[in-house]
Amino acid sequence: VRGEADGLLLTVDVLVEGVDFDFAYCSGADAGWKALVASVSDIAAMGGTARRAVVGLLLPAQTSLGVAEGIADGVTEAAEHYRVNVVGGDVSSASEVGLAVSMTGALEDGPVTRGGAKAGELLCVTGELGGAAAGLAALRAGRGTDFEDASRRQLRPQARAKEGTALARTGATAMIDLSDGLAPDLGHLAEASGVGCEIEVDAIPMEPQALEVAAALSLDPFELAVAGGEDFELLVALPENAVPEARAALDDLGTKLTVLGRLRPGSSAIGGRSLDQWKEKSWEHLRNK
Amino acid sequence: VRGEADGLLLTVDVLVEGVDFDFAYCSGADAGWKALVASVSDIAAMGGTARRAVVGLLLPAQTSLGVAEGIADGVTEAAEHYRVNVVGGDVSSASEVGLAVSMTGALEDGPVTRGGAKAGELLCVTGELGGAAAGLAALRAGRGTDFEDASRRQLRPQARAKEGTALARTGATAMIDLSDGLAPDLGHLAEASGVGCEIEVDAIPMEPQALEVAAALSLDPFELAVAGGEDFELLVALPENAVPEARAALDDLGTKLTVLGRLRPGSSAIGGRSLDQWKEKSWEHLRNK
Repeated sequence: VRGEADGLLLTVDVLVEGVDFDFAYCSGADAGWKALVASVSDIAAMGGTARRAVVGLLLPAQTSLGVAEGIADGVTEAAEHYRVNVVGGDVSSASEVGLAVSMTGALEDGPVTRGGAKAGELLCVTGELGGAAAGLAALRAGRGTDFEDASRRQLRPQARAKEGTALARTGATAMIDLSDGLAPDLGHLAEASGVGCEIEVDAIPMEPQALEVAAALSLDPFELAVAGGEDFELLVALPENAVPEARAALDDLGTKLTVLGRLRPGSSAIGGRSLDQWKEKSWEHLRNK
Repeated sequence: VRGEADGLLLTVDVLVEGVDFDFAYCSGADAGWKALVASVSDIAAMGGTARRAVVGLLLPAQTSLGVAEGIADGVTEAAEHYRVNVVGGDVSSASEVGLAVSMTGALEDGPVTRGGAKAGELLCVTGELGGAAAGLAALRAGRGTDFEDASRRQLRPQARAKEGTALARTGATAMIDLSDGLAPDLGHLAEASGVGCEIEVDAIPMEPQALEVAAALSLDPFELAVAGGEDFELLVALPENAVPEARAALDDLGTKLTVLGRLRPGSSAIGGRSLDQWKEKSWEHLRNK
C-alpha cells in the first residue's frame, strides 16, 4: 500500500462497492469521503503529511448522476478538510463502483514503517476502537439514526493526520493505521517487526457507543473493537521513555493515547485469543466480504 | 489524468477487463504491461520522466493464479524496461479485473500541457499510426499470428518515454499521447489550446502492417489510424523553427517525426471529416466498449 523515496511517500488504496462500502446504507459522498480519508490515514501512519492525490474511478454504466456527483463531492470535501490537492483522475466503467485513490505525502520525520518496533517498547493506540464496526452493524440493522456517533465513524471516518506526524516526531518506532482491525493490523506490525504483544481486553479503549450498539444488537463489543476494522486509529510502538512526550503532543490535539501492552519476542494475543483465532472468528462479514 | 506541482508529476490510469483489454486475446502479463506503459506514456506526454508507481488491483474471486501472477509479471517487466520503481499496491475484489496505475514523474523541462499550442505552429506526430487498432482487429479475427507487428502494438505497446523529454527540451508547446486515437486526442489538444488543425489523410504516417490488416479484413486503414487509439505515439505542437532540432533529437532515438499540418484558429478536421463526424463513426467498438 505504501512506498517511499526522496522524502516523498506514495500510496494507493482501492475501495470497491459491496466490499468496502454499500449504497444500501451509504451515499456517493460517503464513499468518496472514505476513499480519500483511507489514503490520508495511510500517509499519517508513515508519519507523513498528505499533499496530492489522483483518483481512479470505476462507474457502472447505470450509475445515477447523483451518485457520481456525490462521489466527487465527497472526495472534494475530504480533500479540503485534510488540505490535499486532487490533481487528476481517470474514469473507466466496471460492474461495481470503485475508487483507487493514490496519494503523495511529505516527510519531516520518518518514514515510520511497520517493521521498526523492538521488544520492550510499549504498544499504544490513539482514540477509541469499535465505533466503525458498531456503526456498520447499526446501519445494517436499520438503526443508524439511533446510533449517530457510531454511524458517523463508519460513514465519515477521520484520519489521524496530525497525530501521525506528532507520533513520528516524538519517537514512534513502528506504526500502522487500523483499517483492517486491531487483530489483523497488530499481526502486520508484529510480523514486520519480529515482535509480539499480549493485549488484555480491559486495556482496549472502547468507543462508548460501540458498547451501546453491542448491547442493543446482542454483539460482543470487543469483537467489534478487535476484528471490526475501519476505525482508522493509529497503532504505534514507542520506547517507554517516549510515551510521556507523545501523549502530551496528542493531548494538544485532543486525542488520547492508550498503552495496550508491552512488546516482547514471540507471538501475539488479544484477550487470551491468538491472532489466528481472531482470524478464524473474523468479522470480515461485517465489512461486506 | 494528470497534475503537477513542485516539478513532480502525478498521474493515474485505469484499465478494466472488457473495456481496455480482453482475456480472449491477451494474457495477464499483457494487461499488466499495458497498464504500466499507459502511465509512462502519460508522463512522457508532459515531458517528464517516469519515476515511481503504485498499482491498485481489482481481482474477481475466481481469477486464476496464472492470470494474477501474469499481471504482476507484466507490471514488473514494463517497470524494469522503463526504469520505474513500483513502491506499493493494494488489492480488492470486483467482478472484472482492473488495474489503476498511479505514477510520479520528474521534470527537467516543462511541464508540457495540452493547452499551450498557438496558431501558426506545426502539429507533428511521432512514429506510425494504426498499428494498435489493426492488431486488435487481427487478434479478434483470430489472425494475430499472421500480423505479429500489429498484434504486438496492441498487446505490448511502447511508450515514447525518451521522445517526450526530447520534445519538451526542443520546444514543444503542447503535447498529448495518442491513447484514445488521433481524432479524439487532437480534439483534447485543440480544445485546451483554442486552436484547430486540418489534417490531410496523406499526411498521416501509417504503420505498414495496418495497411496489410486493413486489406485482409476489409477495413479502412485510415479509420484504424484516426479513430483506433492505443498507439501511444505523441501528438505535439512545435513552433516551425523548432521542428528541425526536434526531428534531429528524435532521429537520434530512431523515431521519426511527421508534420501533420499547421495549427490555425477555428475547428479541426481529418481527411475532410470534422472531429464530431469522426466521433459519430467512432471505432470505440474496436476497444471493447
